[in-house]
Amino acid sequence: MPNATALVTLLAIIFYFYTGLRVGRARAKFGIKAPATTGHPDFERVFRVQMNTLEWMPIFLPALWLFALYVNDIGAAIVGLVWIVGRILFMTGYTEAASKRGRGFGIQAAATGILWVGALVGIIWHAAQG
Amino acid sequence: MPNATALVTLLAIIFYFYTGLRVGRARAKFGIKAPATTGHPDFERVFRVQMNTLEWMPIFLPALWLFALYVNDIGAAIVGLVWIVGRILFMTGYTEAASKRGRGFGIQAAATGILWVGALVGIIWHAAQG
Amino acid sequence: MPNATALVTLLAIIFYFYTGLRVGRARAKFGIKAPATTGHPDFERVFRVQMNTLEWMPIFLPALWLFALYVNDIGAAIVGLVWIVGRILFMTGYTEAASKRGRGFGIQAAATGILWVGALVGIIWHAAQG
Repeated sequence: MPNATALVTLLAIIFYFYTGLRVGRARAKFGIKAPATTGHPDFERVFRVQMNTLEWMPIFLPALWLFALYVNDIGAAIVGLVWIVGRILFMTGYTEAASKRGRGFGIQAAATGILWVGALVGIIWHAAQG
Repeated sequence: MPNATALVTLLAIIFYFYTGLRVGRARAKFGIKAPATTGHPDFERVFRVQMNTLEWMPIFLPALWLFALYVNDIGAAIVGLVWIVGRILFMTGYTEAASKRGRGFGIQAAATGILWVGALVGIIWHAAQG
Repeated sequence: MPNATALVTLLAIIFYFYTGLRVGRARAKFGIKAPATTGHPDFERVFRVQMNTLEWMPIFLPALWLFALYVNDIGAAIVGLVWIVGRILFMTGYTEAASKRGRGFGIQAAATGILWVGALVGIIWHAAQG
């Protein structure tokens, strides 16, 4: 069983959960009552951090697991940790200003790209060997 | 194969699909034409039910399956059913008023927490045994 | 290992990623600065293409994989390709006009329905045989 990847998956989803908690706190701070999701730029950036992380979950998690199953568990876990670090930088940057979201975004995108390409190579390699 | 968890997964995704159907119906009822997602509070709460369920899918499904694979299939399925019940209460409550979404939300959050913590313990236990 | 389904999964997530790239380009074209997600109908339809694809990922991917594991790898992959074709038609149609999103939507919904029902039959069949 890919234990390391399983642990990183739990880490990734608790981090993502935390981006949602921050939206709840930002609702209170800026007086944005549910179901509204707009009304103050500072709230909207915190909301977009959660949404953007949500948007990437169906790319990151399948790529992470295909890499783990077709290439290597520890390798997947390490790149998965880099993804989480990138996501944290994206969160802290974007919360300050929309212009500061680029670096963290790039790191997590690069990590996802490595997982995707690695999984592709692994699947083709596996299939070619019958 | 974790048959019970597989069945509960199909149940969870058809329930989630239903929260999307309700958005389509609410569009017609309140005259909110796509691509707009705002314009009437009653519509916006129905939309937020779907969105909030979507937001939790990448937390719930991985935690459910890691619990199933590392702890127990039937246990995962039972807690998964509790999650669906909490989600139904969240849906019916939130549709009436934003203030009535708390109970169902709490139930599904508790169920997810059990799956997450159980999976964590199971992975560590499994890894420690080599 | 379900190699064909794994490949189709990589295809599906890169297509979904592309719907997000288009949102970035539409932001530039129509002058919608992050974190705003409204402001021009042409932008909002491109944004809704990404969002709707995101909304379907937690239905499509689990149904695809349960079908692959409980029924057949190649069958899952073929229906998964039909889903991607439907999604492409949905994207190109919706980008032109909200009224042109129906056909592609119907194709991808039908493909998902086949995966869901097939997985259900496969799980019950598997469980009944002990």
